[in-house]
Amino acid sequence: MRDVSIIAIGQTKVDEHWGKSLRHLAADAILAALAEANPGRIDALYVGNMISGEVAGQEHLGALIADFVGLRGVEAVKVEAACGSGAAAVRLGYAAVAGGLCDFVIAAGVEKMTDANGGEVTAALALAADGDYETSQGLSFVSINALLMRRYMYEFGVKHEDFAGFAVNAHKNAIGNPNAMFPYPVTAQAFAKARMIADPINLLDSSPIGDGAAAVVLCPTEMARQFTEKPVRVMASAIATDSVALHDRHDPMALQAAYLSVQRAYSLAKITPGDIDLFETHDAFTIMAALELEACGFAQRGQGTRLAQAGEIGIDGRIPVSTMGGLKGRGHPVGATGVYQIVELVQQLRGEAGVNQVKDCRIGMAQNIGGSGATVVTHILERIG
Amino acid sequence: MRDVSIIAIGQTKVDEHWGKSLRHLAADAILAALAEANPGRIDALYVGNMISGEVAGQEHLGALIADFVGLRGVEAVKVEAACGSGAAAVRLGYAAVAGGLCDFVIAAGVEKMTDANGGEVTAALALAADGDYETSQGLSFVSINALLMRRYMYEFGVKHEDFAGFAVNAHKNAIGNPNAMFPYPVTAQAFAKARMIADPINLLDSSPIGDGAAAVVLCPTEMARQFTEKPVRVMASAIATDSVALHDRHDPMALQAAYLSVQRAYSLAKITPGDIDLFETHDAFTIMAALELEACGFAQRGQGTRLAQAGEIGIDGRIPVSTMGGLKGRGHPVGATGVYQIVELVQQLRGEAGVNQVKDCRIGMAQNIGGSGATVVTHILERIG
Repeated sequence: MRDVSIIAIGQTKVDEHWGKSLRHLAADAILAALAEANPGRIDALYVGNMISGEVAGQEHLGALIADFVGLRGVEAVKVEAACGSGAAAVRLGYAAVAGGLCDFVIAAGVEKMTDANGGEVTAALALAADGDYETSQGLSFVSINALLMRRYMYEFGVKHEDFAGFAVNAHKNAIGNPNAMFPYPVTAQAFAKARMIADPINLLDSSPIGDGAAAVVLCPTEMARQFTEKPVRVMASAIATDSVALHDRHDPMALQAAYLSVQRAYSLAKITPGDIDLFETHDAFTIMAALELEACGFAQRGQGTRLAQAGEIGIDGRIPVSTMGGLKGRGHPVGATGVYQIVELVQQLRGEAGVNQVKDCRIGMAQNIGGSGATVVTHILERIG
Repeated sequence: MRDVSIIAIGQTKVDEHWGKSLRHLAADAILAALAEANPGRIDALYVGNMISGEVAGQEHLGALIADFVGLRGVEAVKVEAACGSGAAAVRLGYAAVAGGLCDFVIAAGVEKMTDANGGEVTAALALAADGDYETSQGLSFVSINALLMRRYMYEFGVKHEDFAGFAVNAHKNAIGNPNAMFPYPVTAQAFAKARMIADPINLLDSSPIGDGAAAVVLCPTEMARQFTEKPVRVMASAIATDSVALHDRHDPMALQAAYLSVQRAYSLAKITPGDIDLFETHDAFTIMAALELEACGFAQRGQGTRLAQAGEIGIDGRIPVSTMGGLKGRGHPVGATGVYQIVELVQQLRGEAGVNQVKDCRIGMAQNIGGSGATVVTHILERIG
């Protein structure tokens, strides 16, 4: 297998893009990436997207977007793994290049959610859960995460206020990210008073609905320096799965797919958690960030919120998290999120993260989650520029 | 890159499976394949599906189905390329094995359409077309194909009755396939009198809506004989794309993506059309079969229907087509169809096609189409058992 690197990145601001169609958003991100580095030939396009069929009136995004960005003819498909779709597209792009089927691949993620009304979006997002055993019982996707959070608080004696640090940190970092949807500070006091969504999850535990697209260009590392002075190497790419339905998991308090996925990734990269300089978590809800830090070896079981309380997840902390705002502050256009995480890691590893720059970072990790932990995609990237 | 073979196949009957959920259908096909040959380890599952989110209330099929068939933990994603989703999943499975990322992969396709009403299914299928420029103008997916067929008849002086041979042949072959949805004969007289759907496409030009699932197990050819006496080798796997919207194609009468895809496949397999012993076309509508035969080099431009009229597409003909009933007779559960085609090719190449057996066949081709030709996936398989 060949060593693979990212030679270019592109992204749109996450926002309510009412003036742009889904294909325009995707094109903005892809053409921005190609403007950074264009190898002159693209062999394949993998598009991460979850709910364009349900809320944007369009499936078949592979061919549609390939054509719109001037790549008519190229191999192109859509990849779906609920909110893990974006990183799954990066994973398939990585596989095509690593395996030698393609030299130059674009992995993109796109989602346009805000043209639909809240009910439509809520119903579409619930398709990530188990239709026969969860949503048919009236559970929404937020309420599934609320069950997880409630159980976590009960099991480990954690208070709701203990989660505040995740939201405060994410929004603080979003201020420095021009592509963030909500670049505004949030205080622990505001967090405590935010209106309830699905008890105990309140508004500031939750990532927002938004429109956006992000893209990366991948190629063999040995060719990368022809196109960029700052290639970022993919040390590891791994997907693992778990039961979609919460009730069927062996231990709902342990994100088993996050554990399996990250263990594969550590093994592939030949590193340990101590080698990670920053970690883009899938903080769709604060409970997810806590569970991920535990599954990935940064905190003991039931102790994830302590990192946030102790300030260890800040830009200058032991393990910086959500360094460009995370899902909470940058926004969460679901099928695009996993690609945003990779784009932001590349910004950090290139030293292009501006006021949010993590000092001397060399190795970063991103974890993108589908459902409440049923699909988990982990990437570990390394600066080699 | 490694040579890849198919070591096992599984399928359900295409039918109105009102008593089975989507995950049960998928499991029936996958477990049937694993009962044929089980390598004892599966590294990844790729699921082809188009509209489960819209008509079956479920996205996130990768993790859901992996778990349900006993593969919890494994890499799993859904792949979507409209009606070309099934073969796209096979393509990704092929890529993972060929590239060395995985040794044992299941590629499956599943679609459950008949629980929804006709209007819901028609709206969902139209998501394969261009939402901004076609469906927003009132075009359904059938009517887009009707535009193609009408133009073809005008341009080449072809009569509607000239297409009858495709439907007659498909239904004749369906009779010998226990998994076919409509194993009943159709006559040219019945074809001429069938009720109109979208002029000039009538009921017997059109493939039916159905539920079904199919699966294959792929592994490196060098390991294949440990698990089966009849491995079938993947000589070529190729995807190409075109404009989704018909009006934007350079020449709507030439399926450019079918041409590009099959040329790549011929080149990879180092063969010419004359080497193909049977061809599973994507006969969702009779016009598609005619256009494909032309794009793939079996007929001159505008002459595709002559093969059907001359009896050349029959089991004993020059180029047998739809040998197990095709989309028309076996049925067309959209996201599963591409995998059914591969399964049927394997049946033929193993010599297990019963009364439908193509004599002395060694090389077979399957072409799966998304939209009205915007995504085309071509596979060429070879008997090596």
